Amino acid sequence: MALAGGVGGAKLAAGLQAALPPGALTVIVNTGDDFEHWGLHICPDLDTVMYNLASVENPATGWGRRGDTFTTLAAMELLGGEDWFRLGDLDLAVHLRRTEWLRQGIHLTEVTDRLRRAFGVLSTILPMSDQPVRTLVHTDEGDLPFQHYFVRRRCEPCVIDVTFVGADSATLTDAIQHALDRADLIVLCPSNPYLSIDPILSVGGMRRRLRHLRAPKVAVAPIVGGRALKGPAAKMMVEMGHEVSPRTVADHYGDLLSGFVLDQADAEMAEAIDVPVMVTDTIMSDLKSKTRLAQTVLDFGLQLAAGHRQPAPKGSPETQS
Amino acid sequence: MALAGGVGGAKLAAGLQAALPPGALTVIVNTGDDFEHWGLHICPDLDTVMYNLASVENPATGWGRRGDTFTTLAAMELLGGEDWFRLGDLDLAVHLRRTEWLRQGIHLTEVTDRLRRAFGVLSTILPMSDQPVRTLVHTDEGDLPFQHYFVRRRCEPCVIDVTFVGADSATLTDAIQHALDRADLIVLCPSNPYLSIDPILSVGGMRRRLRHLRAPKVAVAPIVGGRALKGPAAKMMVEMGHEVSPRTVADHYGDLLSGFVLDQADAEMAEAIDVPVMVTDTIMSDLKSKTRLAQTVLDFGLQLAAGHRQPAPKGSPETQS
Repeated sequence: MALAGGVGGAKLAAGLQAALPPGALTVIVNTGDDFEHWGLHICPDLDTVMYNLASVENPATGWGRRGDTFTTLAAMELLGGEDWFRLGDLDLAVHLRRTEWLRQGIHLTEVTDRLRRAFGVLSTILPMSDQPVRTLVHTDEGDLPFQHYFVRRRCEPCVIDVTFVGADSATLTDAIQHALDRADLIVLCPSNPYLSIDPILSVGGMRRRLRHLRAPKVAVAPIVGGRALKGPAAKMMVEMGHEVSPRTVADHYGDLLSGFVLDQADAEMAEAIDVPVMVTDTIMSDLKSKTRLAQTVLDFGLQLAAGHRQPAPKGSPETQS
Repeated sequence: MALAGGVGGAKLAAGLQAALPPGALTVIVNTGDDFEHWGLHICPDLDTVMYNLASVENPATGWGRRGDTFTTLAAMELLGGEDWFRLGDLDLAVHLRRTEWLRQGIHLTEVTDRLRRAFGVLSTILPMSDQPVRTLVHTDEGDLPFQHYFVRRRCEPCVIDVTFVGADSATLTDAIQHALDRADLIVLCPSNPYLSIDPILSVGGMRRRLRHLRAPKVAVAPIVGGRALKGPAAKMMVEMGHEVSPRTVADHYGDLLSGFVLDQADAEMAEAIDVPVMVTDTIMSDLKSKTRLAQTVLDFGLQLAAGHRQPAPKGSPETQS
């Protein structure tokens, strides 16, 4: 099972899907970024994961659909509609269908399942909750809803803190409970810890549930060589007074983790991290590199599970590279 | 002022707009065809009139937008969405914007005004009511909502009757009341009398209000040479046991009319019609022919208004051609 946000998480999810038997992967996806736009219910991370698992994603951006056009968007601009969030014509069909189903009272979990089946995706994609949880970014320019911070203001405001409105009262879905019961390994994908993984962990009971799982929990660092591979993770670390490094990510997840995967560019960090570490190449440029990283993470998980049952053999897996 | 449904009405409205000073025309438009599709509020006749007045209509169909594409529709088909009503990508922007505004509680009259301004239309376009009125077609296959009869079933079922659900409790808007007070001439456009003009007349008080107006009321026949120029008007006349002729239209409107315009192909009918008749070429193939017909209708209206004040001179306008 994987916990994922948008682009980075979706890439590793695609790798895990390729490395595992068909239908074996379950991805729990952040919905803290969801918002209403043009009167439609937009779930950016769910769509990014689905498009990547269906291999229809735009490889240039990592989000949106390959070969999409923007005819409706151009027409909306002329009608004074909001144009800061770029919805493509192909993409729009998903938002229309989802919104129609949600208005009929169908839960997001079921809506998401219908959509992924229509896209021929065999993996299970689960929203982190069926109740709304909204990521609110507290900045030096005031409190901004996630998409306003992320897209409209291009992550420019300085981040003070992040909260998840509704998380306390949101509950884990039956589908997530069931998936957690059956999980052999939990992978925290290389998504932004503050904006993509924390919302998932914030849903009522999720953190405690993960902590009590026997399955190993492995995070993959979204920071490589002092930079975020994508998005504002590094900038936020600076703004919140942290070192820009994989160690900050490992410290952030703390005792939730059984193991940590970092890039070979940061191999010297391995010593400073409190859990077993796997050093590997974490850059995912194509399906081959995504699958290779996924396989490494899966092997690492197997080692950790074995180590959980018996004392870890000397030099493994902490020192493996 | 013009009362209009879709394509035929929109064509004459475009001619009237060209013949009158900028901003002088008001068109009251049928909303009995409105429906929800893909979770959006679709107003087919309002859009057809607006697109024609903005000169962005698809000349091949008379409805929809010129040069539109169907990318979202194709994607919706793959998602199992309804695909029997062809919404184009440019067109879609209007439905999204309208639905967004309506959900914010803005009345359809105001929404329609915002849209026509965004399209640079100087004429006023008024929905027949801000309350929902739904045309229900009673057929030998049962009761069908208008679009299901018209688009989905392609007018194939045999029509027994037509009713307008909600018409009794719907009220005339202030904008319509005000426009009626100021109207010099009321033109019943060559739209389907049963499906396009009757819904407008059925809104609470509209028929009585028109009857008491001093301004002449002139209808243009949508039947030429025993055939409907567009749509199922002729087929419906047969099914409801009427002669397929302009006379059936004139009889249908009855004492509401001050004058009637019919095509030269039906010149011999003039004698059989109870109100003053203008015979002219009513076929509208381009803006020139639309404007010419509009000018003829306007001149006829002036004559009727003059005749209302003094006895009509011999041989005019009944025998004019």
